[in-house]
Amino acid sequence: MNTTKTLQSMPPSYIREILKAANSDGVISFAGGLPNPESFPMPLIAQSLEKVATKAGLFQYGSTDGYGPLLDYCHAQYALKESHQELICNGSQQGIDLIARAYISPGDKVLVESPSYLGALQVFNLAQADIRTVTSTAKGPELGELENIFSQQDIKIFYVIPDFQNPTGICWSLESRQQVAKLCQLYNVTLLEDVPYRELRFSGKNLPLVSSFCPDHSLVLRSFSKFIAPGMRLGLVTAKDTWIQALIKVKQAADLHTNTPMQALLLDVLTHPDFALHKQNLVASYAQAYQNMANMIDQKLSQYVTFKGIEGGMFIWLNLPSCDDIKLAKEALNRGVAVVPSSVFYHSAQDEPSGLRLNFSHCSETDIETGLERLAQSIKLFC
Amino acid sequence: MNTTKTLQSMPPSYIREILKAANSDGVISFAGGLPNPESFPMPLIAQSLEKVATKAGLFQYGSTDGYGPLLDYCHAQYALKESHQELICNGSQQGIDLIARAYISPGDKVLVESPSYLGALQVFNLAQADIRTVTSTAKGPELGELENIFSQQDIKIFYVIPDFQNPTGICWSLESRQQVAKLCQLYNVTLLEDVPYRELRFSGKNLPLVSSFCPDHSLVLRSFSKFIAPGMRLGLVTAKDTWIQALIKVKQAADLHTNTPMQALLLDVLTHPDFALHKQNLVASYAQAYQNMANMIDQKLSQYVTFKGIEGGMFIWLNLPSCDDIKLAKEALNRGVAVVPSSVFYHSAQDEPSGLRLNFSHCSETDIETGLERLAQSIKLFC
Repeated sequence: MNTTKTLQSMPPSYIREILKAANSDGVISFAGGLPNPESFPMPLIAQSLEKVATKAGLFQYGSTDGYGPLLDYCHAQYALKESHQELICNGSQQGIDLIARAYISPGDKVLVESPSYLGALQVFNLAQADIRTVTSTAKGPELGELENIFSQQDIKIFYVIPDFQNPTGICWSLESRQQVAKLCQLYNVTLLEDVPYRELRFSGKNLPLVSSFCPDHSLVLRSFSKFIAPGMRLGLVTAKDTWIQALIKVKQAADLHTNTPMQALLLDVLTHPDFALHKQNLVASYAQAYQNMANMIDQKLSQYVTFKGIEGGMFIWLNLPSCDDIKLAKEALNRGVAVVPSSVFYHSAQDEPSGLRLNFSHCSETDIETGLERLAQSIKLFC
Repeated sequence: MNTTKTLQSMPPSYIREILKAANSDGVISFAGGLPNPESFPMPLIAQSLEKVATKAGLFQYGSTDGYGPLLDYCHAQYALKESHQELICNGSQQGIDLIARAYISPGDKVLVESPSYLGALQVFNLAQADIRTVTSTAKGPELGELENIFSQQDIKIFYVIPDFQNPTGICWSLESRQQVAKLCQLYNVTLLEDVPYRELRFSGKNLPLVSSFCPDHSLVLRSFSKFIAPGMRLGLVTAKDTWIQALIKVKQAADLHTNTPMQALLLDVLTHPDFALHKQNLVASYAQAYQNMANMIDQKLSQYVTFKGIEGGMFIWLNLPSCDDIKLAKEALNRGVAVVPSSVFYHSAQDEPSGLRLNFSHCSETDIETGLERLAQSIKLFC
């Protein structure tokens, strides 16, 4: 039996391959976007699971939109408008997929930052979107270019990660946020704002969501993977009611609803009196890990690479001298360190600057040092 | 923002509406396919959750195909061929959806029994399949008609529920199973065998899977919702390796992987020394509930309806004198009993016999009696 043409045309996921290899013994991985399991709030989880075990009702079929008490909590917590609704998904990845299935017909134009999150690019490819790109600057998308694209092309959705972007770590300025919202309204483009790293700010001050400046022109995707735990597979989409209703219709066919015991667990953790402290500790530990990695890059790699400091998230984006970064990543893997070459994050990787994405949230201080030494040897060979 | 044309053309789910109303106070519901929450193995679940709470690794990102130890267990338990693989899904509903997304291009022909499971019809509609139907008999699909269809139409997938079908409760005979497998091989049609009710046999003897007669021409969908608990959202697809690999590719984009803590819970429950006893009690209680409902139908409805006895599952399929069964179901709902009209289970409901699907697994004996009295009054008015 042949797969669909769309699926046949999807390239094998290089990152999946590298992540598989990254699990091998002796390999130090800067590749995945994995949180540190030592950061998971296990005492809070244990308390909740004890309660969950007494509630048979949580194991019955549930509502497609999600577990009622969790929806109520999030509606209040995220100060949603009265006219806005929510949908709990199997991670925010499913949110992207449901939005694509509900709203993107083959050939519809979707604009993404260049580079952008690979998992979103996969979804838009699967939906046969016509993917366009806009240049990223340190403050957000290049605004002149963005307005040109909006005015000349019929963009339906603009997919963005304004807080500590994956892969670049960039956090949009306040002005960029306001301008992008204004342009989306002016040109009637739907903003799809993905904020999985938003809670992981370790310096600078919080900025409003881009969507807060255009709430009825946007969908927001939140994730509980990065600041609680990803194995639960829980994310949240919010938007105006009619848009969420369309997603619910697809979700119903896709898997009926998201598992309820984990939703109850999530609510217990979010409302636990110690949760604020958990988050504070988590962010402090990631800030520390970032600082370690940044210092060691300065020590061991500064003659080969440059990078911009970040204020949060999980990734450092290394700029390399021109080279084949895919070959470099393979060489590094042979030497026992897994990294992701920047090329995989570009929709069309031509003449894009060479680089690597390094994750710092998942390794011990020693592993960061050893891993960077191995990387330095590989870079020396290649660049 | 407009939804896709495909989504616009999907009718609102009548059954979702009725299920929503069925939750109102005072309404007795024979509508959903809900297991009885009193049957959930809560002591086994509680023991497992205590263990789960100690394993931070379960809360990390996991493999797209599923939790390794659970996959190993299922491979052995279901005696899969060496060359066959598995994928854990968010319920078997997601399995149907992933198969459709990987294998069905717009216009591809999918054959279903008439009537069939509504959730599968929704998925095939969303995939823009060209849905064809074959008549159901008490022993399985009408074999002459099936061979005609296979020989004259280019059917890609034949979707079937051979064990205690939803909605009819029919269990295919051994001969039907062998013949269908033979025809699938002969005409190179892929069999999609959905067996959510298979473990719920309360009389007669177990029959082999249809797929056991054509393992390399089939995909099998198993569910843990009906004999453990649906709120976990766990199902399993098995098939030859290349087919599962394609599904994994779609699953990766759809939601990365199924939540791991629930998979660990499932494995603990399946391998618990008391699990066999749980299943035995569950099946005995459903057999009893079926017998209650069947007896009361004989007492209260026999002048209006007929039905065929069943050997397992969750549903009785009532044949009615010719009437508008959708109006009847609405009238019954007004009188405080929710049922599903048979028309919704037909791909194209024209001249199909009037009927109702009644679920018996979810109500107390008293509710079954009261509900059937209300139903009798409604039928009296209509038929």
